[in-house]
Amino acid sequence: MKTLSENSCFGGMQGVYSHASEACKCDMTFGLFLPAEAADGPVPVLWFLSGLTCTHENAMVKAGAQCWAAEQGIALVFPDTSPRGADVPDDEAYDLGQGAGFYIDATEAPWDRHFKMWTYVAEELPKLLGDNFPLDMARQSITGHSMGGHGALTMAMALKGRFRSVSAFAPICHPTNSDWGRKQFAAYWGDEAQWGPHDATMLMQGMGFDGPVLIDTGTDDQFGDLLGTEHLAEAMAKRRQEGHIRLQKSYDHSYFFVASFMEDHVAFHAEALYR
Amino acid sequence: MKTLSENSCFGGMQGVYSHASEACKCDMTFGLFLPAEAADGPVPVLWFLSGLTCTHENAMVKAGAQCWAAEQGIALVFPDTSPRGADVPDDEAYDLGQGAGFYIDATEAPWDRHFKMWTYVAEELPKLLGDNFPLDMARQSITGHSMGGHGALTMAMALKGRFRSVSAFAPICHPTNSDWGRKQFAAYWGDEAQWGPHDATMLMQGMGFDGPVLIDTGTDDQFGDLLGTEHLAEAMAKRRQEGHIRLQKSYDHSYFFVASFMEDHVAFHAEALYR
Repeated sequence: MKTLSENSCFGGMQGVYSHASEACKCDMTFGLFLPAEAADGPVPVLWFLSGLTCTHENAMVKAGAQCWAAEQGIALVFPDTSPRGADVPDDEAYDLGQGAGFYIDATEAPWDRHFKMWTYVAEELPKLLGDNFPLDMARQSITGHSMGGHGALTMAMALKGRFRSVSAFAPICHPTNSDWGRKQFAAYWGDEAQWGPHDATMLMQGMGFDGPVLIDTGTDDQFGDLLGTEHLAEAMAKRRQEGHIRLQKSYDHSYFFVASFMEDHVAFHAEALYR
Repeated sequence: MKTLSENSCFGGMQGVYSHASEACKCDMTFGLFLPAEAADGPVPVLWFLSGLTCTHENAMVKAGAQCWAAEQGIALVFPDTSPRGADVPDDEAYDLGQGAGFYIDATEAPWDRHFKMWTYVAEELPKLLGDNFPLDMARQSITGHSMGGHGALTMAMALKGRFRSVSAFAPICHPTNSDWGRKQFAAYWGDEAQWGPHDATMLMQGMGFDGPVLIDTGTDDQFGDLLGTEHLAEAMAKRRQEGHIRLQKSYDHSYFFVASFMEDHVAFHAEALYR
């Protein structure tokens, strides 16, 4: 593991690290914020999964999360959204290939060699973090934005018992029913019959989540039709899932929206992590 | 004036606008955050002047200032740091030409046609803002980062009575005595005998500031030797200038540092603006 940068930040440390990833077969970069409390022992962890086109950096510099994580004594992990590099396949479209890993393991060429973001975020990176930093991996929660909201919701439900709470900002809620989802699943997984159960609405209809859920989406989200919020809302209400779905008046899909509600999300997770 | 974007943000609106600048003879872009209170009438204004290489955007997305400005009901202005465009002269170095206006009016070719950032920030932009937005121009304060801290301090002192309070993050304090200053003043103004009184330490030795001053600089600032904090500290102490100079342990020059102390700065200005 290589330290790319470490900056003092809200009494703690915002680091950026890279490492050779076995899952993605390339170097991967991630951001990690450690609050001051990490000097005295392991702290709980909140994952932030980012959206299409993002690297580890966008949320790290734009979401204003460190302020609230420092207040709560919680670490923040900012993974990248895909494998990267000259050897890694890409596509001209912003929503396929590099920057668009969709938090799934591809099985179709040319993506199947590197695009293993599920394994990377669910297995490889947690192990690396637990082995190298003062993190209490028994206390984890997860959030994300857009494609990263899809990632957060599907991981929270599929990895039963891993996360104490899940939240999302403008998540892609029903990818098998949206152009943000069908296109990528077809490319990474091929025929629809082979698609994995990586759809938050379908997982909510099935197993649900054993903990609280918080969803914020703007009423003026320019990608609102692609998100399918109504499907997740229906599924949550139907199974009486513990949670809040909030439609925030006049907010859009930007990081200005994410930053505006970050305090609420970190406080929501802190309650679950310190319960 | 053209609206480039408007995003809901912390209950208010983060806008980006461009206009043909008379002072700079090119189109100029600025960011303006209006808190919710602006819907009911004019609100006080806090200027944020940015540092070398920055546009209007860096502080707007990285400093986390909107959160605290919304809490205090204060507008934020984020001007660009120089004229821009294919017709505007530039230099290969990051610290001269576009992105490095230094908040002064150039008199030397090739800079003298466009590089009029003093006039732009001190005269043209305030007039445009006052004419077009619900801003109470009788209640203004100013802050900035690095080169923008130099701009904030020199404007606060030179424009007597304009600003109720001034603060700065890692400001260039004594540019006539630093490679961040001498190089640019020589290029924009020519012979040293012609240099204007745009040096915070010299202005502090002279007129000082009629109001409170807050300076934050990191003890691990990688550009610490270029900032000359000791000269401003000496000048402030000598004239018994009302103010705080804080050396923040282990912080560097980055926006992680700026964001970490933004709450303090906005609260400091709010106290002066609502006095």
